[in-house]
Amino acid sequence: MKLEFNKDQLINALGIVSRAIPVRTTNPILECILFDAGSDVIRLASNDTELGIETVCSGTIVESGKIALEAKLIYEIVRKFDSGDAPVVIESNSSFMTTISCDNAVFNIQGKDGEEFSYLPAIEKDNYIVLSQMTLKDAIRKTIFSAALNDSNKMMGGEYIEVRGSNVKFVALDGHRIAIRNVEMKQEFGNAKVIVPGKTVNEISKILKDDNESEVVICFSKNHILFEFDDTVIVSRLIEGEYFRIEHMLSRDYETKVNVNRNRLTGNIDRATILIRESDHKPIIFDIRDQVIRMQVKSAYGTMNGEVGCVKEGKDLMIAFNPKYLLDALRAAEDEEVSIYLTNAKAPCFIRDEKESYIYLILPVNFVV
Amino acid sequence: MKLEFNKDQLINALGIVSRAIPVRTTNPILECILFDAGSDVIRLASNDTELGIETVCSGTIVESGKIALEAKLIYEIVRKFDSGDAPVVIESNSSFMTTISCDNAVFNIQGKDGEEFSYLPAIEKDNYIVLSQMTLKDAIRKTIFSAALNDSNKMMGGEYIEVRGSNVKFVALDGHRIAIRNVEMKQEFGNAKVIVPGKTVNEISKILKDDNESEVVICFSKNHILFEFDDTVIVSRLIEGEYFRIEHMLSRDYETKVNVNRNRLTGNIDRATILIRESDHKPIIFDIRDQVIRMQVKSAYGTMNGEVGCVKEGKDLMIAFNPKYLLDALRAAEDEEVSIYLTNAKAPCFIRDEKESYIYLILPVNFVV
Repeated sequence: MKLEFNKDQLINALGIVSRAIPVRTTNPILECILFDAGSDVIRLASNDTELGIETVCSGTIVESGKIALEAKLIYEIVRKFDSGDAPVVIESNSSFMTTISCDNAVFNIQGKDGEEFSYLPAIEKDNYIVLSQMTLKDAIRKTIFSAALNDSNKMMGGEYIEVRGSNVKFVALDGHRIAIRNVEMKQEFGNAKVIVPGKTVNEISKILKDDNESEVVICFSKNHILFEFDDTVIVSRLIEGEYFRIEHMLSRDYETKVNVNRNRLTGNIDRATILIRESDHKPIIFDIRDQVIRMQVKSAYGTMNGEVGCVKEGKDLMIAFNPKYLLDALRAAEDEEVSIYLTNAKAPCFIRDEKESYIYLILPVNFVV
Repeated sequence: MKLEFNKDQLINALGIVSRAIPVRTTNPILECILFDAGSDVIRLASNDTELGIETVCSGTIVESGKIALEAKLIYEIVRKFDSGDAPVVIESNSSFMTTISCDNAVFNIQGKDGEEFSYLPAIEKDNYIVLSQMTLKDAIRKTIFSAALNDSNKMMGGEYIEVRGSNVKFVALDGHRIAIRNVEMKQEFGNAKVIVPGKTVNEISKILKDDNESEVVICFSKNHILFEFDDTVIVSRLIEGEYFRIEHMLSRDYETKVNVNRNRLTGNIDRATILIRESDHKPIIFDIRDQVIRMQVKSAYGTMNGEVGCVKEGKDLMIAFNPKYLLDALRAAEDEEVSIYLTNAKAPCFIRDEKESYIYLILPVNFVV
């Protein structure tokens, strides 16, 4: 095999496929990127058996062939070549010894047989939707932080995507909070309900462009989800099972509604977290009355008191939260002014906009004054 | 005590004195910053018993007094106050309970008695030199990387400063290399030879400005060194003992002299380090002949070959180095073109300019071709 690339184009393609390379693995082939050059296109691929990425990289096929190269090594080597007009040449022989050269610098590394590499599974493309890359990226970023980080409950670590008519719902939850984003598409597609691993959506959100013009096609099959955009295809296994029935948890009733400047509230809560170390679960207490939210934190390090003016409808209320959960939700709600809906000190709090393009549910915590 | 500050001025002063706060200590007073407000100025101070920093911060003294506050906490609190016109107010009572407030945000933390705090030692200011802040910062940064990181030999962890007439020599070494910077002052001062702890010079280099107009006065006493600049005084203990006799190690003889483009050489060596992990001590081998430096690295990960054109005087030579040491020295030598002086494969290599404003000595390592 002998291929020639423009350095920047190759770096870009390597950056994309590197996203599926596992941090730790006992199977060396999973640490590799496959270079697969047929008669007309060069494909780069990675596959950690749960998540697979394939992208087309333009380049010259001097001699077709396949080789699997250690991802970190090849990425570092290409990245450190002098940026100039000289092409990056990758050439491997029948024993998979591979020469990577650019200008006067020549690296020799041992590659692996490309035949050892597992291809992405073939996915039927009959049930699909189309979104702009920016919309998908945004919906993922503004929900996935609510997914559980540890693996005790696999479903809680995933992102739930539900398609109904022209509506796509993105949901993540961890037992203390729920994040929901509703996206309206221009047309109706089929219906679907899938749970995508958190790692998959996180990596995809890093590859997607902040671009409303470029589209991404999302195909649903029984066990897999496929994302196709630009020159890239990403296939991920789904998490099996029936997702939590979130509609039951979402109440539209409330007894107190607060409209407040989001930045000012966020600043106050953020400041309060100075006194809270991760290990001690100190809450932030909200005392909502007289068109003011008074906040208090008490910990071994001291106390903090803050206040923010607000417009309150309904009754006064004292309620306490894990400040991190509030911060995450407030940062994801991009409006200048947010509405917070509350019932009592034991009932969930909702941060949502009028048309419910976002809904953040946060459970309160116990507190002593 | 009650003081009022402009937020940005206070942040700046806290940033300076925080540099002497130890990362770990069993003595809680060392983690504190002293606020000392007499009748006219407010001084902030920190002191880890080896290094002490004192700076004047402008502000309003509503009520004079002293208080020691936990450095990280006070810095974080002030940093997270809304940036606006509201002053930061620090007020403590007779039991050292301290209120830090700005606008509507109020923190209460327990301070410590300022009397517990050790002051900087008084230093005679009769033996001193004057440099621009930029010159001192530069001389430190371009030598201290050669000091030994571990504490096995205290002297090797320090920076040697020698004043002779109008010359100041800055030296750091670790047994494998020596870095020397010579600075010419406009006038002659007294003579001095001191070894300053590496931590001290590192922290000072972070506080000094990149400014050729602002000066720093450096005073030498038997056991201490004092740096005075802007509104800040820094006092550090010295490392005791007689420094290594470096003049003996510096030979001006050579058998091969190479002039080479610094960036091109650095790029090649940097690239070669991709194949070297910290644990395996693989050298980079230089084969210098025909006006070309050919470089090779072999490791478990593969091989790298590179070459850079050069102007060579004298005989051909093969010699090997720890690539990290070469990179450090080449990055510190700021000339576009550098001169490398070599004798044989076992003798030290010198990178230095004509007037010896910098000298980097690097010992070669053994190699097999």
